[in-house]
Amino acid sequence: MKEQQTAALLEALGSQAQQASYQLASLSSQQKNRLLKAIAAALTENSDTILAANQEDISQAKENGLTPALIDRLLLDAPRLKAIIADIDNVIALADPIGKEFDNQLLDTGLRLSKRAVPLGVIGVIYEARPNVTVDIATLALKTGNAVILRGGKETLNSNRVLCQVIRQALTSLDVDANAVQLIDNPDRSIVSGLLRLDQYVDMIVPRGGQHLQRLCAEQSSIPVILGGIGICHLYVDEHADLEKSIDVIANAKVQRPTVCNALDTLLVHRLVAEEFIPRICQHLHTLGVRFVGCQQVLDIVDAQSELSQVIDMQLVQEGDYDQEWLGLTLGIRVVETIDTAICHIRRHSSGHSEAILTDSVHKASHFMNQVDSSAVYVNASTRFTDGGQFGLGAEVAVSTQKLHARGPMGLEALTTYKWLAWGDYTSR
Amino acid sequence: MKEQQTAALLEALGSQAQQASYQLASLSSQQKNRLLKAIAAALTENSDTILAANQEDISQAKENGLTPALIDRLLLDAPRLKAIIADIDNVIALADPIGKEFDNQLLDTGLRLSKRAVPLGVIGVIYEARPNVTVDIATLALKTGNAVILRGGKETLNSNRVLCQVIRQALTSLDVDANAVQLIDNPDRSIVSGLLRLDQYVDMIVPRGGQHLQRLCAEQSSIPVILGGIGICHLYVDEHADLEKSIDVIANAKVQRPTVCNALDTLLVHRLVAEEFIPRICQHLHTLGVRFVGCQQVLDIVDAQSELSQVIDMQLVQEGDYDQEWLGLTLGIRVVETIDTAICHIRRHSSGHSEAILTDSVHKASHFMNQVDSSAVYVNASTRFTDGGQFGLGAEVAVSTQKLHARGPMGLEALTTYKWLAWGDYTSR
Repeated sequence: MKEQQTAALLEALGSQAQQASYQLASLSSQQKNRLLKAIAAALTENSDTILAANQEDISQAKENGLTPALIDRLLLDAPRLKAIIADIDNVIALADPIGKEFDNQLLDTGLRLSKRAVPLGVIGVIYEARPNVTVDIATLALKTGNAVILRGGKETLNSNRVLCQVIRQALTSLDVDANAVQLIDNPDRSIVSGLLRLDQYVDMIVPRGGQHLQRLCAEQSSIPVILGGIGICHLYVDEHADLEKSIDVIANAKVQRPTVCNALDTLLVHRLVAEEFIPRICQHLHTLGVRFVGCQQVLDIVDAQSELSQVIDMQLVQEGDYDQEWLGLTLGIRVVETIDTAICHIRRHSSGHSEAILTDSVHKASHFMNQVDSSAVYVNASTRFTDGGQFGLGAEVAVSTQKLHARGPMGLEALTTYKWLAWGDYTSR
Repeated sequence: MKEQQTAALLEALGSQAQQASYQLASLSSQQKNRLLKAIAAALTENSDTILAANQEDISQAKENGLTPALIDRLLLDAPRLKAIIADIDNVIALADPIGKEFDNQLLDTGLRLSKRAVPLGVIGVIYEARPNVTVDIATLALKTGNAVILRGGKETLNSNRVLCQVIRQALTSLDVDANAVQLIDNPDRSIVSGLLRLDQYVDMIVPRGGQHLQRLCAEQSSIPVILGGIGICHLYVDEHADLEKSIDVIANAKVQRPTVCNALDTLLVHRLVAEEFIPRICQHLHTLGVRFVGCQQVLDIVDAQSELSQVIDMQLVQEGDYDQEWLGLTLGIRVVETIDTAICHIRRHSSGHSEAILTDSVHKASHFMNQVDSSAVYVNASTRFTDGGQFGLGAEVAVSTQKLHARGPMGLEALTTYKWLAWGDYTSR
């Protein structure tokens, strides 16, 4: 695509989205919910077309030799589509954060001042694979009165095109500007770079994808970016931990769903319990299919038990292993001298997502909570809880690992901002 | 400076600041206030050295032929330094937002979940000219448990060096890591670019300076940036405005302090009152030293009154004039057909800082407040109110014109984030 064409396309996308955002900002909660209902109905009505389009993506994926795991992520079948549509009902049921006024004050000058929650405006979302994100993000954005520009993965281009078309038709049927939801369906990569510089029109960029995408956005975007979804998560087994109870929590954190961001990556074990605990936890996790990379001390402990060392898959940790988000059944294990060694390890290697301590000592628990600065810090619980649904947010836009605007699981409020409103009587300063 | 040296300098700055931030995060409110008191005392004690260093900056500035207005901005004399020190008492008196726990929930899983307000960590501040910013930002950051890396203008390098040194000595005297406050005193510009990429250590960048600095940070930073302080502010005189009362408000907005960001830049006047009002307001503002750029209709109205047209300084508006932050006694004036023309003008030309409507119509007032999306929107009040002090925040870190994290005047809370804390009982998902 020529540079000029790209620029014109981006200019159109941006200005259309902004224009649509003005209308969306003035819709009532009921109007927005009617819109979401219409979208759910339209998706149901057009199920066959949607599934057929997805089949094209799947055929293409098979032709291109994608792995079965990845193909499964792309797949939409009737039950999955139904679940996606059912999720819209959940979004309808959520309270609308928009329009709320708060922090009201009467100032000495006579001004009546308040803040009002308003939509951000235009949100750009760049995501990979799963076509459910298209519906998910579009509905969350509309619920909060925001326009969206979507850029999905090329692997689901056909599915996304049809999904977006159906959503836009539903908007039009209720006299809402269809440009409230726009899809960039041109696979040219320069469009992503262009989108990241469209600060005149776009208020926030949400990259939902791997490390590479996150870095690209952080480095190239002139628009505020919500980084997230990368979890290098730690669990520290303190000398005062109940070792028996700890085993289940660690197993839950590691194997319940190893491919997600809140799954456990590195286990830190206090030296005073290492000799007793490490063989037990390795034995248990091994039966669940886990392989290990451990520090020299871990290897020594395991090697001392020749039966165990012969069955489990244990490698010496390599440079960079502690900075890996494993997204699979590998677990790093390290013996630490003290709780502060564990905290230092976490500060150095964590992505700021979720960390936990297992201990019966209140003192140690508090110290860990105070000193570890990640989006979620747990005492005696699995890192797997870091999730919008679990945290009672009703929806999850993303899990932010940065500190500004929103941290951890992001609900609808993260798609809002506020403006200050002041009523005077021809008041001067 | 060689690239390698710069990289080593930045690495040291960043890692030292981060290290210091861990200590700061665990200080109690009283400890932080004691620290601020020690800084105030040390600045008082070292007043002579500080003023002497500033005199060096002033001599240099005169040698370099800086304008008297700019030299005045650089100047520290005894009363100004006293005022800066007195401001520290105000910061001490503010409530400490850190440590507050909120949004507590008991989840179905048995987890006790809450959010705790915590410092951001490390803040990088890039600013121009005024040496008061050095003390101001350092104390606000310390109050909220944040470490800062300061990069002041080269025009006040000597002042900033001494101020920073005195602050660091006060920190050391109370066993607080002096690297909580670090100054980049090397004028090499590549250090700024490097600072903007130091995302491993720095959590937020605050540029306090003009358009050029803001763009540089937006475009180059891989760290979240708080843009702000650029105000292209509008006042719309509706057909239902009380014209007599409007004159004072407009004069206040324009001339009370024309060099600041909340001063008025463009006056929009409804066509139905234009013929009556424009000559009156021009006459009045002219006596206060204001010059005008107007649309053709404004010129026609003024030209029809030959006496007025001979005395006032009125030019036809040029391309780009409506996108100017005047920072002086120039005022743009445009006649608009309807309130919606005014709103469109604001959407197109505003920097999202402060806008006002003057009207006696509730309907028009509400419409304007709903449709105009700037950080502060006023009915019947001067735009000059947009200010942390006026809004009861007690302090002002900056005035944000972006929508994420903080909008409008930023108080201490804007220097905080939160982390989610969860207590379980060896709880699995």
